[in-house]
Amino acid sequence: MPSEFELIARHFTRATPSAVLGPGDDCALVRPAPGMELAITTDMLVEGTHFLPGTDPGQLGWKTLAVNLSDLAAMGAAPRWVLLAGALPAADDAWIAAFAGGFFSCAQRYGADVIGGDTTRGPRNLCVTAIGELPAGAALRRDGAQADDDVWVSGQPGLAALGLAHLQGRTTLPAALVQRCVAALQRPLPRIELGLKLRGLASAAIDVSDGLVADLGHILERSGLAADLYEGQFPLLPPAAEPKLARECQLAGGDDYELCFTTPPAARQRVVMLAAELDLPLWRIGRTVASGERPVADVRLLDADGQPLPVTHKGFDHFA
Amino acid sequence: MPSEFELIARHFTRATPSAVLGPGDDCALVRPAPGMELAITTDMLVEGTHFLPGTDPGQLGWKTLAVNLSDLAAMGAAPRWVLLAGALPAADDAWIAAFAGGFFSCAQRYGADVIGGDTTRGPRNLCVTAIGELPAGAALRRDGAQADDDVWVSGQPGLAALGLAHLQGRTTLPAALVQRCVAALQRPLPRIELGLKLRGLASAAIDVSDGLVADLGHILERSGLAADLYEGQFPLLPPAAEPKLARECQLAGGDDYELCFTTPPAARQRVVMLAAELDLPLWRIGRTVASGERPVADVRLLDADGQPLPVTHKGFDHFA
Repeated sequence: MPSEFELIARHFTRATPSAVLGPGDDCALVRPAPGMELAITTDMLVEGTHFLPGTDPGQLGWKTLAVNLSDLAAMGAAPRWVLLAGALPAADDAWIAAFAGGFFSCAQRYGADVIGGDTTRGPRNLCVTAIGELPAGAALRRDGAQADDDVWVSGQPGLAALGLAHLQGRTTLPAALVQRCVAALQRPLPRIELGLKLRGLASAAIDVSDGLVADLGHILERSGLAADLYEGQFPLLPPAAEPKLARECQLAGGDDYELCFTTPPAARQRVVMLAAELDLPLWRIGRTVASGERPVADVRLLDADGQPLPVTHKGFDHFA
Repeated sequence: MPSEFELIARHFTRATPSAVLGPGDDCALVRPAPGMELAITTDMLVEGTHFLPGTDPGQLGWKTLAVNLSDLAAMGAAPRWVLLAGALPAADDAWIAAFAGGFFSCAQRYGADVIGGDTTRGPRNLCVTAIGELPAGAALRRDGAQADDDVWVSGQPGLAALGLAHLQGRTTLPAALVQRCVAALQRPLPRIELGLKLRGLASAAIDVSDGLVADLGHILERSGLAADLYEGQFPLLPPAAEPKLARECQLAGGDDYELCFTTPPAARQRVVMLAAELDLPLWRIGRTVASGERPVADVRLLDADGQPLPVTHKGFDHFA
């Protein structure tokens, strides 16, 4: 069986042109550009909690990095450096090679260097730390939304949760939809380009990892606001999916890693043009509301007549 | 049962004066000082592999951070920011409170701010990323040792491994020794002050996490050298410990987090004065040797007559 050091050297040592010193020492060394801030995030993925046993290792490698880069996107940061720590039940060379393939594929796509890590034996667990750069003061924070801002979401939130429901046998999707939903689940695309373009445009942003309503709630909580969402302005539900489940997935499904963000109404036209420029749907799904008469973070979903619809599942809590 | 968000807010949100933005957003934000490099390391601790089930959570909290800060010490970096990701089998409020107590105690002692993290359910696993600052070009790398450099180690390497052997019932230490060895195991002191003072003095450095001979081997490997160690210049073995086991722990026991480093012979007097200044024993245990006639990373242990002694256990490999 190859040793820990051999495994790391074989699969995780690649050129790190953006670092002063890459893997192989006690620490990696990097030199941030003058005048820049660093955005730093860490996410841990556990087998059985975040991904199913038997998940394709290449897809898992991609996703493990993508969910971290998504946090950088939500801050408007450009990915620069990542570290990967992993516990594995065995030194399975083929599994590690496939995982590394997916991981580096994602790193290369979004311009991040893998500068360090740690490998150990244990129940399968993958922990990434991602570091991005952005101009000082330019970050898209959660606490900047103002009353009467537009609320937006990118892409097609809910597809990943539908894909999971299909894989778990809770629904049966038509073949044409399966591929797209499973891809959304297993190979999410962090919205890095969108995040960079939202600098100076969005008043607040978050990536949708726990569910649209729950994650919007984090913006509202930190900004001291409530919100109204308009059902009629949401993306259409996927055809041939069970409507109730599809709506639930859209509102409360995690794992899509789309961006939810707010902008002042005056910026509306610029956001529409940005959608065209990026070839990415951006849906204006509601607006923020001063919390005077309503609790902070209260979210109402209104139908075409302005009547509130029930919002039940508010997101995902690993300990709930 | 408190939710993930409540647990994080309750136990892991403290002031982060050194950060632009601390926990609670998609990323933390920091602004490195101009002209400084960042040293970055990540380490994962798994229950059953790195610590025993039932380990006191306060001590585990300290150690989880200490082993990461030790990597910063080995680069000569000053601790600045840390992130903590943890998988826990249950949202045990008392356990988390004690763990956080130990973790923050270590962070405060060494001047690091806890700027972010992640909490999830799963087999107990703790993953820290630590970031330190140092002047550009000042890092203590593994690849800088020259032939005929002195080889040094700090403190009393081997005590932690003896403590583990005692806890596991493989030996019985006298009471007076138990406390000290178990403290070395459970509450290691990262040699931050030593690392900072070694800037401009040491040609190479590493922290002893896998075992003295194995970790010195990493310096030798990267520097293209071999080494001779002199048994007579090692720290005395602890009295009343089984001599063979004590020697094995000294040479190959991990988990002490002392620093092993090399210096040019001309610096010898400065190192001796540094030991006095820091009130920390620094042992000159050998010298590096050009690898001409010997394999790179070959380590010989010589007795008082210059005769080689057997060196068996070369360190710890999680997959061996």
